[in-house]
Amino acid sequence: MTTINLDHISASPLLPEVQEAMITAIREFQGNPSSQNQAGENAAAVIETARESVAGLLNSKVPREVVFTSSGTESVNQAIKGVAMANRSKGNHIVTSSIEHSSVNRSIKRLMQQGFRTTAVSVDNMGRVDQEEVAKAITDDTILVSIMHSNNEIGTLQPIKEIAKITKEKKVLFHTDAVDSVGVIPVDVQELGVDLMSFASNPYYGPTGVGGLYIRRGVSIWPIIDGGVQENNRRAGTENLIGIIGTGVAADLAKANMDKRLVHLKELKDYFISELPNAIDEYYINGDIDNSLPNLVSVSIKYIEGESIMLMLDDEGYSVSTRSACATGSLRASHVLMAIGLDHADAQGTLLISPGISTTKEDIDGFLKALADITRSLRDMSPLYNKK
Amino acid sequence: MTTINLDHISASPLLPEVQEAMITAIREFQGNPSSQNQAGENAAAVIETARESVAGLLNSKVPREVVFTSSGTESVNQAIKGVAMANRSKGNHIVTSSIEHSSVNRSIKRLMQQGFRTTAVSVDNMGRVDQEEVAKAITDDTILVSIMHSNNEIGTLQPIKEIAKITKEKKVLFHTDAVDSVGVIPVDVQELGVDLMSFASNPYYGPTGVGGLYIRRGVSIWPIIDGGVQENNRRAGTENLIGIIGTGVAADLAKANMDKRLVHLKELKDYFISELPNAIDEYYINGDIDNSLPNLVSVSIKYIEGESIMLMLDDEGYSVSTRSACATGSLRASHVLMAIGLDHADAQGTLLISPGISTTKEDIDGFLKALADITRSLRDMSPLYNKK
Repeated sequence: MTTINLDHISASPLLPEVQEAMITAIREFQGNPSSQNQAGENAAAVIETARESVAGLLNSKVPREVVFTSSGTESVNQAIKGVAMANRSKGNHIVTSSIEHSSVNRSIKRLMQQGFRTTAVSVDNMGRVDQEEVAKAITDDTILVSIMHSNNEIGTLQPIKEIAKITKEKKVLFHTDAVDSVGVIPVDVQELGVDLMSFASNPYYGPTGVGGLYIRRGVSIWPIIDGGVQENNRRAGTENLIGIIGTGVAADLAKANMDKRLVHLKELKDYFISELPNAIDEYYINGDIDNSLPNLVSVSIKYIEGESIMLMLDDEGYSVSTRSACATGSLRASHVLMAIGLDHADAQGTLLISPGISTTKEDIDGFLKALADITRSLRDMSPLYNKK
Repeated sequence: MTTINLDHISASPLLPEVQEAMITAIREFQGNPSSQNQAGENAAAVIETARESVAGLLNSKVPREVVFTSSGTESVNQAIKGVAMANRSKGNHIVTSSIEHSSVNRSIKRLMQQGFRTTAVSVDNMGRVDQEEVAKAITDDTILVSIMHSNNEIGTLQPIKEIAKITKEKKVLFHTDAVDSVGVIPVDVQELGVDLMSFASNPYYGPTGVGGLYIRRGVSIWPIIDGGVQENNRRAGTENLIGIIGTGVAADLAKANMDKRLVHLKELKDYFISELPNAIDEYYINGDIDNSLPNLVSVSIKYIEGESIMLMLDDEGYSVSTRSACATGSLRASHVLMAIGLDHADAQGTLLISPGISTTKEDIDGFLKALADITRSLRDMSPLYNKK
C-alpha cells in the first residue's frame, strides 16, 4: 500500500534533485573541508556554494551570516544559549511566548538553572502574540526576545516585523524560530529585521540532520559547540558535507518555486477546509487560519481521541500526526493547544493535517472519506458521544 | 589524475557498502523517527539497529548508552560541558592533558569562563601521559578527567585503562576522546572502564556529520542540545537518518574486518618506516611509534616547511596533511608537537602520513619517490639547509 503523506510538518520527502545531488556527493566527495589539500578545498567550496544558496533563500546579503547546524533544534539552542551566555553581563532576562517549540522552551529552562529569568507572553485564542505585550515584557535586564515565526502545531504566523521594530528600539536582541516557515513561505531577514533566525532543511524538502542559524553581523554570541575553526569559528566539528550539499539544492529549488508551491498549497488548504464539513461535524479548526502556514491545518474533532484516529488513518494509508513530533514521548496535552484555550479532551482529539507540494486534491478526497468513516466508527464506540 | 589519499586522519572515503546503504536510505526513507505513524516507526527502528551496531563495536551491552551526535566534536562538547554543568555542585575542577584535540581544549576554556578550573598534565617526548601524574592532579574539587585515547597528530595511545582505575578509585568521572581510535583499533568500553567516550563515524569509513557519545549508565550529564525527547532525552533534534544508517553499516564492517584491517595497516606502516631512510635523511618520527595508531605516522623533516611540501605533494597527486584538520585556520605551531618538545621550525616541518585500508605498497612507493624529489628540491632552495 502506498502511504499518502499528510504529515509534512514532521517529515518531508527529499526532492528528486536533492536526492541526486546527495547521491553524487556520496559517490564523489571524500575531502575534509578543513584540509588544505585539493580534496579538502573542493569540499570547502561546495559548502560555500550551499551557504550562498541558503543565504539567497533568506535574502541575507552576507553568506557568512549563515551558520550550518545539525538541526533546527541545535540552531535554536545555539541562538538562545549562545546569546544568553555571551551577553550575561548586560542582563539575565529573556522574553518568549507561551507557544514556542520545545527547543526554545527547554533551552530557556536550562538557562534558568544557571540564573536566567524568563517572561512568556500569552497568545490569544488564535495563537497570536501581541507585540505590545512583548514591549511591556522587556525590562532593563532583558537581553533577548525569542518568538517563533510560525507555530508548528497550529500554523499561526506572528508579527515578527513589528516585534523586531520594538527590540531594535529597546536595543534587545531578537531571535525567531522560523523552522517551519523558511523555504515554505517567503522569509526575508532584511525585511523582518531579526538578529537571529533558526531554520532547518527538511521543511523545504532537504535532508534531516541539517539546520542553520542566521546571525546578523555584529551579534555577540558564544558557540555551543567549541573546537575547530569550522563555520567561521562559530560552530566546530567536521561538516555534514552530504547533507549540506542537499540543503543547498533544496534551498535553490525552494526559492525558484516558492510562488508556484504557495499557490498549490493554498488551493489544497482551501479545498480541505471547504470540504471538511461534508465529511465530519462537531470539529473546529485551530489557529489564525487566514494568517497561518499554507501546509498545515489543525483540526480538533470532538468526542474522539486523536491518537486512535491517527493510528486508524495510518492503517488506511494516510500519515498524519497529533502533535509536534519532537514531543511524541510526552503524554501531556499540547502546551500550544492549552495556551489557545482548548480543554484537555479537545486537545487530545486534535489532528495535524499537513499536505505537501506533491499532494493532490484526490489525496485530500481519499483522506476525507477515510476520516469520515473512522470518525463515525470511533464515535459509535464513544460513551461521551452517545451520552450527549 | 587520481589522488592517492594518505590523509585518512582528516577524511576517510565511504565504503561501498556504506554508500549503498545511504543511497538506499535517500531513496526510501521519509519518516521522522519521532512520528508515531508507520513511516516514523520504520525510521525509528532503523536508528535503533544502527545504535546496536555501534554499541557492538564499542562492546557496550546496553545500546541506550550510545547517543548519536553530529560529530566527534559535538560528542566531546557534550561529554565535558554536560558533565561539568550537571556536577557543578560537587566541584569545579577538570583534569586533562596538554595534547588534547581543540574540541577538548576549547570546551574546557569555555567552562573556565564560567568558573571552572583545569589542570593539564604534561606528556613525555613520545606524547605519553603518566597515569601517576593524573592521580596527583586530582583534587577534592575534581569532577572530571578527560584524556584522549589516541592523539590525532602523533598517534600515541594513552594508558586509558590504568587512568580509569584511578578515577574509579577516586570517584571522579572519566571521559576519553577516542575519535581516532574507535573503529580503527579494538576499543572495548567494558575493558577500558571509562565513563564517557567520544567517537565519530568517518574514521571507520562512515559519513561525516555523525558522531556519538558512550555514556555509562548512571552518569549524571546535562544535554547541550535541549528540545525534543530524541536519543532517550539526551540529545534533541530530528536525527540525521541517512548518516546514522551509514554509520551502522560502517560499524558492522569495522567490527567484522578489524583484524584484517589491522594487519594490513601495520604492514604498510612498517614498510613506510623501513623504507623512509632510503628516500630522505635528517628527519624523525614523532610519537610512541610502537604504541600508536596503525594508520598514522608523523614525520618532522628538517630544513623544510611542511605546508610547502604538502602543497607540492598534492600537485603530484598525494594528499597528506601538516596538522589536525580542525586547526587548519590557525597559524600557530601545533600545541601537540610543542608539548613533546619539538622546536618551532621542526614543528612547522611536520607531515602527517595516514594510509587507509585501500592503500597499497605501490602507493607508498610512489609517495616515497615524490617525497624524496620534493624534499631534495625544497632543500636546494633552503638557506638553512645550505648554510649547515
